[in-house]
Amino acid sequence: MTASIRLTLDQAYHLAQRALRSNGFSAEHADAVAQNVTAGERDGCASHGLYRILGCVHSLRMGKVSADAEPELIDSAPAIMRVNAHGAFSLVAYRRALPAFVDKVKHNGIAALAINHCVHFSALWADIEPLTEQGLVALACTPSHAWVTPAGGNQPLFGTNPIAFGWPRPARPPFVFDMATSAAARGEIELHRRAGKPLPPGWGIDKDGTPQPMPPACWPAPC
Amino acid sequence: MTASIRLTLDQAYHLAQRALRSNGFSAEHADAVAQNVTAGERDGCASHGLYRILGCVHSLRMGKVSADAEPELIDSAPAIMRVNAHGAFSLVAYRRALPAFVDKVKHNGIAALAINHCVHFSALWADIEPLTEQGLVALACTPSHAWVTPAGGNQPLFGTNPIAFGWPRPARPPFVFDMATSAAARGEIELHRRAGKPLPPGWGIDKDGTPQPMPPACWPAPC
Repeated sequence: MTASIRLTLDQAYHLAQRALRSNGFSAEHADAVAQNVTAGERDGCASHGLYRILGCVHSLRMGKVSADAEPELIDSAPAIMRVNAHGAFSLVAYRRALPAFVDKVKHNGIAALAINHCVHFSALWADIEPLTEQGLVALACTPSHAWVTPAGGNQPLFGTNPIAFGWPRPARPPFVFDMATSAAARGEIELHRRAGKPLPPGWGIDKDGTPQPMPPACWPAPC
Repeated sequence: MTASIRLTLDQAYHLAQRALRSNGFSAEHADAVAQNVTAGERDGCASHGLYRILGCVHSLRMGKVSADAEPELIDSAPAIMRVNAHGAFSLVAYRRALPAFVDKVKHNGIAALAINHCVHFSALWADIEPLTEQGLVALACTPSHAWVTPAGGNQPLFGTNPIAFGWPRPARPPFVFDMATSAAARGEIELHRRAGKPLPPGWGIDKDGTPQPMPPACWPAPC
């Protein structure tokens, strides 16, 4: 049985935040993740929306993410900044690093920020927007696990390895671009799986390279 | 009639250098271009090899490139450097900028170099190698003219927009990657045209979107 309900964005935020808090996430981590998935719903990108909360809680229960780690900012060079997220989702680490990172960019003309020891949790465009809103050009990427076969192959070798970039424009919203470098983003596959909809051709193959219209039962959902 | 001759790399360099010099290129520009196309032949990438000299001379005769412009180095910010190539090929501008640019990278951790007002002349991997050889990670890209239709389209909209990157590795040669973001690089199409070989499916279409096995007679060769 499937029932539909409609939520305002404010209600969606509070639902996500309460679910995360009551499962043990600290106030700051719960707030950052809840804001992020609410923005996914707001922007019409359900693959980075509310359903991800289920994966967040699952990841916590499996011991794969910290519920309350304090990020550690490391000033590595005049134009390089690192954050050790100490095993938590990336959002709080990024939020804490942002002011000093923006200072580095504005002073030097370009700077790089690396968030290490994190579980990356964001659509990359959401990592780009805080920079374009400050009048900066931004480029973001993240590695992922080996889920993707090269064209014609049958062994996973590549990540979905998304890339995003953006820049401000005079008198118009910033231009922001975000793509997976695979046939499909994992979140889009997960939405098909949850809806029981067959995958478009080319999205999935089995170990013999034969196209598969459905993700397998053991398909691990994105966190 | 087609005749084949074999040249050593040294002979190839001197042939290219003499052709460029006798057509009016300055000694420094002729040297840089001749070194570059010789490296293309050496590395087995004929699409950036000797035949490009014909295009270089054609571009000069058409007034599309300067034979002797002096590049102008502009120190824009602690981690940003620009070069105004004043209409010449990019190679001399890059060569002149490299030492100060490498200093910026090593001091700041990251830096960006932009070569403006140039006719980009290089395979991007050849722009990457001088940086990986100094122990640095490098990323290079260049725009190109609107030669490429989006998938399913019939109007040129994108450039071939190549992207290259590389990094040094301990006890092994640097890893260097170079790709066009189009179905094929223009140089590869030109090599097919010159050899009278039909293009693989997907490389070329006409104005109705119909696949074309041969470039049209008016196909402009890369410089």
